[in-house]
Amino acid sequence: MMDTEHLGTHISKQFNADLENLREEVLAMGGIVEEQITLALDAFTNNDSDIADKVIANEKMVNAKEMKIDEACTKVLAKRQPAAGDLRLIVTILKTITDLERMGDEAEKVARMAKAIANKEMAVANVKLHYGALLHLGNHVKKMLHDALDAFARMDVESAVNVAKLDNQADEEYNAISRQLITYMMEEPRRISEVLDFMWSARALERIGDHANNICEYVVYLVQGEDVRHKSWDEMQRLAKDE
Amino acid sequence: MMDTEHLGTHISKQFNADLENLREEVLAMGGIVEEQITLALDAFTNNDSDIADKVIANEKMVNAKEMKIDEACTKVLAKRQPAAGDLRLIVTILKTITDLERMGDEAEKVARMAKAIANKEMAVANVKLHYGALLHLGNHVKKMLHDALDAFARMDVESAVNVAKLDNQADEEYNAISRQLITYMMEEPRRISEVLDFMWSARALERIGDHANNICEYVVYLVQGEDVRHKSWDEMQRLAKDE
Repeated sequence: MMDTEHLGTHISKQFNADLENLREEVLAMGGIVEEQITLALDAFTNNDSDIADKVIANEKMVNAKEMKIDEACTKVLAKRQPAAGDLRLIVTILKTITDLERMGDEAEKVARMAKAIANKEMAVANVKLHYGALLHLGNHVKKMLHDALDAFARMDVESAVNVAKLDNQADEEYNAISRQLITYMMEEPRRISEVLDFMWSARALERIGDHANNICEYVVYLVQGEDVRHKSWDEMQRLAKDE
Repeated sequence: MMDTEHLGTHISKQFNADLENLREEVLAMGGIVEEQITLALDAFTNNDSDIADKVIANEKMVNAKEMKIDEACTKVLAKRQPAAGDLRLIVTILKTITDLERMGDEAEKVARMAKAIANKEMAVANVKLHYGALLHLGNHVKKMLHDALDAFARMDVESAVNVAKLDNQADEEYNAISRQLITYMMEEPRRISEVLDFMWSARALERIGDHANNICEYVVYLVQGEDVRHKSWDEMQRLAKDE
């Protein structure tokens, strides 16, 4: 067997091209997920079942993308046998695409809820008062995903840590929506089932924020070689200042 | 650079020992998570804040275990540069421990809800009527995790596919609990907030089942080299019959 790993710069360039290709694929997958979130929110605010169906159909694309990148990572690992930083980059990619795929699942859930609500033709006038809050949360977590992808693309620890801060805000927004909906359910017990659909959507959005946060933690781990996944936000901020 | 991969059986034995060690660590981590689920359910059924606190404290152990295995996998990848099946095993381990860690998070959520309910000293007589259903779901997903770890340990596709079947049952159990709780909330709107705590716990348990299912899908992927993560249950069953 010929040892192709040591043929010099050409191979090294090819390897860099492999890594660059993987990174671009991750960003492309992230772009699809962003679009899915946008469409799911559209379906919600416009009571549009067709848009919801589109999100549900597109979900297959997200899954296919994950499998494709997963396979490509395994191939690069087998062919290039990377060490140290390159190896960590590939492990980070494997973890990141899992989170992106889960975000896609959550966007699909939001679309399904939007469809359920649109089909019920129910008198949701009061629920609709909360659409603004839901949309705000949705846009907030979409920004988190966007910033997380940006931090990933530029390997920027400070941006990554800022996303963790945004996640705290997302949690607060979710809690506020949740409290409002509980109050509304108490006033209109017959609407509980429909309001819960609404609440699941808010929770799905909040989880998208969590996944964006996970990606940022991988970025910090990758850049600093220190595992921050289970450190507090304060510690992460300290790490960001130290670099 | 010396090609240490081809020095013969001694190196190969060391590599096997590394892989065996990783597998044992995963099973040990799985065992801790099983114990966490057991304790969280105990805290719930006995209204015991102390047990809930124990689960919350133990969560750090689960996280530490994940980081340790993650690090060990990266080291083995760098040192042994495995190919083909061995490489896929390590990628499977990296994914599996992510799911185990998330299960630990869900068990912690159940413990926190148990604590919230225990501390509220509320008149939850009617909610308690549903404890049996929650406990049943909890034991069901605990069995799923146990079987998933078993399928992982023995690399047994048929067992893995059986867990997917159990997951359908878990989803049904969760839906039944959810419907009952909605009915109860409609009858007792003042209890909505507390009943939602209960509902989140049921959902956390249902998600533990989903994660067990994920692990089984990785096992099938590993053994058959075919990605079943986004195939339907019917297709998975067909695959199990084909082997």
